[in-house]
Amino acid sequence: MLTLYHSPRSRSTAILTLLAAMDALDRVEVREVSITRFDGQGAPDPRNPHPEGKVPLLVHDGVAIWERAAILLYLTDLFPESGLGVPAGDRLRGRYLSWLAWYAGVMEPVMIHDAAGLAHPFLSATFRGMAEMRDRLSTALAEGPWLVGDRYTAADLLCSSPYLWFRDLDPGCERIRDWVARCAAHPARAAALERDERALAA
Amino acid sequence: MLTLYHSPRSRSTAILTLLAAMDALDRVEVREVSITRFDGQGAPDPRNPHPEGKVPLLVHDGVAIWERAAILLYLTDLFPESGLGVPAGDRLRGRYLSWLAWYAGVMEPVMIHDAAGLAHPFLSATFRGMAEMRDRLSTALAEGPWLVGDRYTAADLLCSSPYLWFRDLDPGCERIRDWVARCAAHPARAAALERDERALAA
Ligand SMILES: N[C@@H](CCC(=O)N[C@@H](CS)C(=O)NCC(=O)O)C(=O)O
Ligand SMILES: N[C@@H](CCC(=O)N[C@@H](CS)C(=O)NCC(=O)O)C(=O)O
Repeated sequence: MLTLYHSPRSRSTAILTLLAAMDALDRVEVREVSITRFDGQGAPDPRNPHPEGKVPLLVHDGVAIWERAAILLYLTDLFPESGLGVPAGDRLRGRYLSWLAWYAGVMEPVMIHDAAGLAHPFLSATFRGMAEMRDRLSTALAEGPWLVGDRYTAADLLCSSPYLWFRDLDPGCERIRDWVARCAAHPARAAALERDERALAA
Repeated sequence: MLTLYHSPRSRSTAILTLLAAMDALDRVEVREVSITRFDGQGAPDPRNPHPEGKVPLLVHDGVAIWERAAILLYLTDLFPESGLGVPAGDRLRGRYLSWLAWYAGVMEPVMIHDAAGLAHPFLSATFRGMAEMRDRLSTALAEGPWLVGDRYTAADLLCSSPYLWFRDLDPGCERIRDWVARCAAHPARAAALERDERALAA
């Protein structure tokens, strides 16, 4: 059994989007839980098994899976026929894994450091900054419309997510802006957002 | 063909350690390159294809794979018989993916923020801090000697790596300290360090 602990309009909406894109929403029980929001509103939910009260958390047959990069990879491997991942054995598998890990280990920290206005030699040595982040995306997108191969994958979903979340965050480059627009136009995104709005209204 | 761009005594030594643990050092061509060291010494190597002059970088049949979490996963999936990973289909696969992603997305940022003496509400909301990081490791290690299942995997290798690197970094908890000692005692670590020393001497 697959259970997703989810909070509408949060990072876990990326997992809903993937499930919608894979047409697999009916294969996962989605449990809505409350979280502490960025503005301090809300509170951790005692029904949420995540040790820090965060979302998303996926539980598969009793085993907890956390971190979006891991959950997206796990689900795309579980439903390979969906074509939203890159299966083991495919020559681009390593590139797929790299973008997911890079999002978690570089892109998200860099964006948070920038939003917080933090600068420090340790940060630039380890993560670099917004300019290098943009260069990486832009160089990759110069080769084709998507980060891995010739189709939208969970790597595009995850790496585009901050731009879709912070609508006034300018990607600062035409190529990235176009790609964000392509990701935003994926029908799964509208489906996940609608589901979130229905859950909030209920 | 597999090529590892490596710099002795750096983060890429974790990949050498994995290769030694998998007895797969002879299946990868290791190319030593220079990098800018944390103290500002050294310089990026023009022979290193990593766009930011960093290591490690693995190239498999022309496809570049970067970020340790991704490289470790890729290699343990490529050499499943080594037992250093957790194969797809194993019920603990998700936990394995989660620790690798958590290292990249939480543990490394938290340690760098702490070392840099940085604090900010955005950092604690997104990454939390040293205390929560320790809690996660300690809780996991209360269940058994290794992070996933009953044996040493690349998840232990990666998550223990900062403690092995900064020898005076106290894990702050007996259980973590003992686990770090178990990871340090793995014969692959001595093999990788020796190889690094030989490369530096040459
Ligand atoms: N690195 C985690 C971050 C998860 C995360 O921070 N989620 C937010 C929702 S946007 C949360 O649950 N916040 C509640 C809290 O921090 O207490 C991931 O990508 O899965
Ligand atoms: N997130 C990357 C970090 C890689 C990294 O920062 N490597 C250091 C070596 S310890 C490096 O190459 N530094 C050279 C530089 O920053 O120019 C990973 O885990 O693979």
